[in-house]
Amino acid sequence: MSAMNRQILLAARPEGAIEPDTWEHRSVPVEKPGPGSFVGRTRVISLDPAMRGWLDDRPSYLPPVRIGEVMRAASVVEVIDSEHPDFRPGDHVVGVFGAQEYVISDGAGATKVDTSLASPSTYLGALGIPGMTAYFGLLDVGALQDGETVVVSGAAGAVGTMVGQIAKVKGCRVVGIAGGPDKCALLTDELGFDAAIDYRADDVEQALRTLAPNGIDVYFDNVGGDILDAALRRLAMRARVVICGAISQYNDPTRVKGPSNYMSLLVRRARMEGFVVFDYADRYAQAAEEIAGWIGAGRIKIKEHVVEGSVDDFPDTLQMLFRGENVGKLVLQLV
Amino acid sequence: MSAMNRQILLAARPEGAIEPDTWEHRSVPVEKPGPGSFVGRTRVISLDPAMRGWLDDRPSYLPPVRIGEVMRAASVVEVIDSEHPDFRPGDHVVGVFGAQEYVISDGAGATKVDTSLASPSTYLGALGIPGMTAYFGLLDVGALQDGETVVVSGAAGAVGTMVGQIAKVKGCRVVGIAGGPDKCALLTDELGFDAAIDYRADDVEQALRTLAPNGIDVYFDNVGGDILDAALRRLAMRARVVICGAISQYNDPTRVKGPSNYMSLLVRRARMEGFVVFDYADRYAQAAEEIAGWIGAGRIKIKEHVVEGSVDDFPDTLQMLFRGENVGKLVLQLV
Repeated sequence: MSAMNRQILLAARPEGAIEPDTWEHRSVPVEKPGPGSFVGRTRVISLDPAMRGWLDDRPSYLPPVRIGEVMRAASVVEVIDSEHPDFRPGDHVVGVFGAQEYVISDGAGATKVDTSLASPSTYLGALGIPGMTAYFGLLDVGALQDGETVVVSGAAGAVGTMVGQIAKVKGCRVVGIAGGPDKCALLTDELGFDAAIDYRADDVEQALRTLAPNGIDVYFDNVGGDILDAALRRLAMRARVVICGAISQYNDPTRVKGPSNYMSLLVRRARMEGFVVFDYADRYAQAAEEIAGWIGAGRIKIKEHVVEGSVDDFPDTLQMLFRGENVGKLVLQLV
Repeated sequence: MSAMNRQILLAARPEGAIEPDTWEHRSVPVEKPGPGSFVGRTRVISLDPAMRGWLDDRPSYLPPVRIGEVMRAASVVEVIDSEHPDFRPGDHVVGVFGAQEYVISDGAGATKVDTSLASPSTYLGALGIPGMTAYFGLLDVGALQDGETVVVSGAAGAVGTMVGQIAKVKGCRVVGIAGGPDKCALLTDELGFDAAIDYRADDVEQALRTLAPNGIDVYFDNVGGDILDAALRRLAMRARVVICGAISQYNDPTRVKGPSNYMSLLVRRARMEGFVVFDYADRYAQAAEEIAGWIGAGRIKIKEHVVEGSVDDFPDTLQMLFRGENVGKLVLQLV
């Protein structure tokens, strides 16, 4: 009798917030790999704010997850059976393998990782897509110059913690915006941010006036909404606003609050630019090497929020993102 | 007994739309020029959408007009008396001389113009700030490439008519958005636009889908609001959105409608960038020469809406902009 593969499928598109009936939990037998493929057993699954967008039936940078399809998710799997020449049992592989316990893969989009250098979860965080997003968003899209003032929202998240720390490596003044005193303390006391703003307690615009008195050169936005508007009011001349995400707006895509202060772009001769990290795939290796160097030198600290559980805990763990309950990269580690 | 100088002063800041009590009409004696200055008699006054913003007491790219101050306005004056070595009676001079019949100037910011080459009004339009705005906004900020698809809103206005025609010179496909069938007919029948959308009658997003089927490469925005949102939905990959103005939003600066589709910037890897034309002042002469060449070659047509009257007609003439009653560059010619 073969092992069973527990999976989380998209059952119904949420109208607003994700609800339990968004998902179907299912078990199917684990198949044997055919020629040129391997079977991996999931070790750790990535939870990402972008997942909310993938559930909507609207054109975006990736096609929507289809109803009845295994939920799209990046993960690290351990190869347990292989008919693929490049993957051997025991190999750890990162890829978009879905919210499921086992995967059959032909190796497309799969990358072997060295778990002696970093834990599997780190290949989903600092050395994975969040790290790449921070690196290319800040340095390429944001065109960061040494010594500038950087403000990042969602600063205690997977991307935000990396944005702020990379900006510090580049000699910038860094202000993080996060929710709650614990996250703010983490940013300044542990991660080296120059200052932190608790958007739940502080007047963000007023705090930016104090903490970025010469204006913001690069604003890296993960949240949208009122915080984006506050940052727009405090731009320095020729500022760059990097649009990475808008988690505050994801649960009601039909009623997104546009940035009403966008005319600051004119007054400050500034630009607002979006990007999708996948466009930089041919430079991931170089960026990961540079980030690994900073980690090795103690200049960047890895922050991960590891939830231990089963694939069935995927829905509840995902909700933590939208409630702001994670600090650093949120992953579900299968135990 | 000296001549009297009729002036329009800012009497009270409008809360929303400009009202008659926004202005004070006053007459003061015309003074004699002192050493190093000249007296000019106003020939033609520029009316610009940006004037609404100058009335608000909020930081912008220019200081607000002060209460009791002559309303800021560009104009062409004819020198009638001079103690300035560079300006002789009979010279025509363009500058920011204000909404008044006479001006005393020390020559700062004043440029002599040749009325045998172009009419005074053209130095306020195609060869003036609107022409410069179109030129640098489209070519520098928009980084227009030959053959791209350009969409411009406020297309029948002073800047819009120039944007579309310059884009045609550059071999682009050009779609103009304007209000009413007459303006739309002007764009396509007289100014060479490939297509026009009447935002009062058409579904703008649907029309853009048809008329720019491969998406918009450069969207030049003069209006903001719903039209900006419609354009954001139709961006091509790596599109540039040039923020020049937002006339639909000027009359209620406390309740600006932000572009709720701004996340298209992410999906389309696009940027939205603002600019202020004054930053390009050191290149005005070169741009004006190039535009004059296109006019001389019949490739660009000058569109001007000339209202004849006195300085006292300034307030009513200005309102025409916000009611969309002008076609091309709106000026008040003093008779």
